[in-house]
Amino acid sequence: MSDIAPTGTPGEVDHLVRWNDQGLVTAIAQEQATGEVLMVAWANREALATTLASGKATYWSRSRRKLWTKGEESGFFQRVLEVRADCDGDALLYLVEAPGPACHQLRRSCFSHRIDRDGSVHTDRPVIA
Amino acid sequence: MSDIAPTGTPGEVDHLVRWNDQGLVTAIAQEQATGEVLMVAWANREALATTLASGKATYWSRSRRKLWTKGEESGFFQRVLEVRADCDGDALLYLVEAPGPACHQLRRSCFSHRIDRDGSVHTDRPVIA
Repeated sequence: MSDIAPTGTPGEVDHLVRWNDQGLVTAIAQEQATGEVLMVAWANREALATTLASGKATYWSRSRRKLWTKGEESGFFQRVLEVRADCDGDALLYLVEAPGPACHQLRRSCFSHRIDRDGSVHTDRPVIA
Repeated sequence: MSDIAPTGTPGEVDHLVRWNDQGLVTAIAQEQATGEVLMVAWANREALATTLASGKATYWSRSRRKLWTKGEESGFFQRVLEVRADCDGDALLYLVEAPGPACHQLRRSCFSHRIDRDGSVHTDRPVIA
């Protein structure tokens, strides 16, 4: 695979991101300050464009079939400091500043379940941030 | 959604993880020491079981249609310190200790492309770690 030339040409992201057959890529939100992985969702072309334009992390909700700006209901918007894509263009990383819980279960991160070697599950307590 | 009770029962992970219609979930590798998100791939039930049993991050390669223990060719195994699952059970987070490049492009992380607001792409140089 040859690298994408860092030419800084506006719009070249269109040649980088490889949307799947549903027009989606994986989108990961990571708290920039702490490195904590907060959540994983999906983005389509419009969600990425909205994220870049607004600076608010925006996803595609597969269940509701609509664009979804995180925080539009809770008020806990994720301010996007940087957007990255991976080498094969099928995953995005939103580096964010995110007050409050990222998880609908009122946890900072959705990754609340630790799976131990014996397959047992240990779940973090909810925390109101 | 009710929480998974942290009962510590062996094998309860089977009730937590929700494999998609291809039997897969998203699997993210994060360097525990630095918080760096290294790569995103897929895991099936066997990949997760192998990861838990061996302590080496193992994925399902969709292109090769086989289990894939990261490092089996390069020698750069990812030692798994912790496995986590997210609230709806469709994503795994492998917290790893990973010498060398995680990316086949010889970069520490696959997330080598920064996307700026105007859609321009800026790519990290490869680094032999």
